[in-house]
Amino acid sequence: MEHEFDRGVHVEPSGPRELAGHLDGGWVVGGGVNGGYVLAVVGNALRVELAELEQPDPLSVSAYFLTPSRPGPARISTRRVRVGGRRTTAAASLVQDEDGREVERVSVLATYGDLGEPGEVERQLPPPELPPVEECVETLFAPEEVRVSAPLLERFGTRLDPRYAGWAVGRPSGSGVVQGWFRFADDRPLDPIALLLVLDALPPVTFDLGRPGWAPTIELTAHVRAHPAPGWAIVRHETRNVSGGQFEEDCAVWDSTGRLVAQSRQLALLPR
Amino acid sequence: MEHEFDRGVHVEPSGPRELAGHLDGGWVVGGGVNGGYVLAVVGNALRVELAELEQPDPLSVSAYFLTPSRPGPARISTRRVRVGGRRTTAAASLVQDEDGREVERVSVLATYGDLGEPGEVERQLPPPELPPVEECVETLFAPEEVRVSAPLLERFGTRLDPRYAGWAVGRPSGSGVVQGWFRFADDRPLDPIALLLVLDALPPVTFDLGRPGWAPTIELTAHVRAHPAPGWAIVRHETRNVSGGQFEEDCAVWDSTGRLVAQSRQLALLPR
Repeated sequence: MEHEFDRGVHVEPSGPRELAGHLDGGWVVGGGVNGGYVLAVVGNALRVELAELEQPDPLSVSAYFLTPSRPGPARISTRRVRVGGRRTTAAASLVQDEDGREVERVSVLATYGDLGEPGEVERQLPPPELPPVEECVETLFAPEEVRVSAPLLERFGTRLDPRYAGWAVGRPSGSGVVQGWFRFADDRPLDPIALLLVLDALPPVTFDLGRPGWAPTIELTAHVRAHPAPGWAIVRHETRNVSGGQFEEDCAVWDSTGRLVAQSRQLALLPR
Repeated sequence: MEHEFDRGVHVEPSGPRELAGHLDGGWVVGGGVNGGYVLAVVGNALRVELAELEQPDPLSVSAYFLTPSRPGPARISTRRVRVGGRRTTAAASLVQDEDGREVERVSVLATYGDLGEPGEVERQLPPPELPPVEECVETLFAPEEVRVSAPLLERFGTRLDPRYAGWAVGRPSGSGVVQGWFRFADDRPLDPIALLLVLDALPPVTFDLGRPGWAPTIELTAHVRAHPAPGWAIVRHETRNVSGGQFEEDCAVWDSTGRLVAQSRQLALLPR
């Protein structure tokens, strides 16, 4: 496996409807393993488990985050809820050992199918107009206290739109937006499983609201709408509803042709 | 039980972690039982099953629709995924008998908690400006072929914004929007379980795109953000991404004070 993403999400069948993986310490952010990476590991496990059905693509994946994942071995158990000719719904659960006990990290329901060739676009949300890549901000330039807690950032070639990256130098825009260009640092091409990661790869929108700190996700649902074309993707995160200690974070990803290829919404807790 | 919604979502414990309900024929639309009503039945079953935890409110509910529900008896089996001090995640499955076989209708993952008193609103999407209730359109005025297939409409006191109701007279606006005022016909007050219904109670946005017909939901996730205040609610549905035979439909519900109390996004198939 040439690319670190493929090594990171690699799973091996280890029993009936069960797969073994390893959460890589390279995808840690702020002490926990990045939720998008965990989603991609589970998404890949379901892809492998359902391989014989020839429905390789996650159309919709809903993940309920139960406890923070840690680097180390992980076991993904799966269950086929309904196998259909065009779409199959399955459940998955990622567990890790913690002090000799099995602890569930994330519980997932998902529908897989075959995205095939990208079908007609009748209407879509246009991508944001971003400054050219070279005028955007490498997240590697994030302040030391962010960078040391996020080896994750080194996996990505993310370039953030400077209009919404002022939080990195103590001047959040207050808009509740984070957006930018995305590719993997090692140029691994994007595909539907990688999009599950991309949907939760940028810093949380709460940074742009002047609220650094960990914003635990309760639930995240990803919809993958098409196979992405090669090249830089555009990613936009936005929150419009912050209330009662919670916020929603919507994410959209467009490929290099400007086509919307994935969306997600998550419900998360405001940092303390 | 004074109100038909309460009779419609009523469930009785029928075994370990299992409840019996009855899908009422009064909530049928286009030959199938309305998805929002089925969601409310499952949501109420989880509320009953988790009652001892004093976490009565659905914070997030993700439903994967597997087969069309039919009027008649239904069984809801539940499983506690993770019980926490403030939030509990549980799974549920609604099944019905069909020709002597058990068929799963909908599979659900959800997190429950206690919404408590509505907390501070730091930012929110403002409600749309609607014409006054009396200038909006009763869905009972829908064309005969819609009405006869939708006894559901008689349960609601929905008043649609006429700007996006032209489909009812063959002139869809093409905006991909359906919005209006909502209350129950018998004035049953809204609460978090009823909001699960409200999020999928209006006609599909595809009507406004000139595509009548059934738009099967693959997945719908609801977030309930606060207890609604009494009075007319405002509901807005919109689709922004129609491609590859699928569309997403976002819904937001505001209570009579203008507070956003619930949101949902669903992924659905375009009508044939």
